[in-house]
Amino acid sequence: MNAVILLSGGLDSATVLAIAAEQGYQCHALSFHYGQRHRVELNAAKQLAANAGVKEHRIIDIDLAQLGGSALTDESIAVPEVAQEGIPVTYVPARNTIFLAYALAFAEVIQARDIFIGVNAVDYSGYPDCRPEYISSFQHTARLATKSAVEGQPINILTPLMSLGKAEIIQRGVELGVDYSLTVSCYQPSETGAACAVCDSCRFRKAGFAAAGVSDPTLYI
Amino acid sequence: MNAVILLSGGLDSATVLAIAAEQGYQCHALSFHYGQRHRVELNAAKQLAANAGVKEHRIIDIDLAQLGGSALTDESIAVPEVAQEGIPVTYVPARNTIFLAYALAFAEVIQARDIFIGVNAVDYSGYPDCRPEYISSFQHTARLATKSAVEGQPINILTPLMSLGKAEIIQRGVELGVDYSLTVSCYQPSETGAACAVCDSCRFRKAGFAAAGVSDPTLYI
Repeated sequence: MNAVILLSGGLDSATVLAIAAEQGYQCHALSFHYGQRHRVELNAAKQLAANAGVKEHRIIDIDLAQLGGSALTDESIAVPEVAQEGIPVTYVPARNTIFLAYALAFAEVIQARDIFIGVNAVDYSGYPDCRPEYISSFQHTARLATKSAVEGQPINILTPLMSLGKAEIIQRGVELGVDYSLTVSCYQPSETGAACAVCDSCRFRKAGFAAAGVSDPTLYI
Repeated sequence: MNAVILLSGGLDSATVLAIAAEQGYQCHALSFHYGQRHRVELNAAKQLAANAGVKEHRIIDIDLAQLGGSALTDESIAVPEVAQEGIPVTYVPARNTIFLAYALAFAEVIQARDIFIGVNAVDYSGYPDCRPEYISSFQHTARLATKSAVEGQPINILTPLMSLGKAEIIQRGVELGVDYSLTVSCYQPSETGAACAVCDSCRFRKAGFAAAGVSDPTLYI
């Protein structure tokens, strides 16, 4: 059974890929080069996809930087080094909606009914498009959107990490043999892939490894 | 007030742009080069945007052909010349979901609440992502997806053509001064932009002009 796995190269999506593979899916990994600062992530995604034995890995070039509006795609906005109130500047406008729209198109072409995405509503940065009500609404939209859905093959948006804390995600991934030294979480890694240790994403990651009682294989600056 | 207008260069979106402009919006037109066979459409979109006095016109390059699966993006699938039962091969997987996802991102960046799209449930080709229930569901998803929506600026997906027949659309556009000689409807126009007269889209267009009692300015082969 085919499934589309959104794979960023980060800790969460690497774990999702391992979960989907363990469930016996033929995994079609989908990554995006979207003008983000951290191309290092895509190299991580390639290695993770190969390690997981995916059926294929497609990397689609989409230029969200053309639209601007985020510290992750716009060089003129600094990545903050302390936690912020509300939705942070690292939020990329409509990012998950765009990613899921492509995943939906890909699913239809390869006749997959299941799309996996590593969103998480526990240890997250407050992005609105990571919440369960958003995912549920997108799934409803997807079921109305496509030829295959209309013809009786409803799409499922699967979020196995939704209710897990970062430590639980890491424990699950370790059980499944995920090599977390390959994953990149940092919003502003160095050219060599070393993590900054101070951005939101690094902080969540470090705390997660500590809470899981697992040694953090991340190379920090 | 800013609005995003999805502008394909076809008859419907040209009319939607004129309607939005008449309503006093600052129009930000958004077009896509998505690997479709008919680049002629994008030249039409440029002229239509200029004629309508838009505030800006962005053309985003997205490669749906990478995903395949449609006669409109895949050269190996022929465009049919007779009407078909069900959803036709010219259907592009998840196209409107992808277009609306980008429009949502653009709307958030320019602080627009209103997105116009020229979908129509009357004289249409049976695409599932043109139906009112699909649009309504996408709007709901959009209102959950974005920082601006969460902060109290809900997004509206506006479909002024939804319940109009092709003849009514043409009559409305003529009243608003749309130059339909600029618009391209054909799924397989020649290099010079001449329309084939036999694809679904040409047939709906011809019948619409005839029913509206308006002379069809289209150059057919």
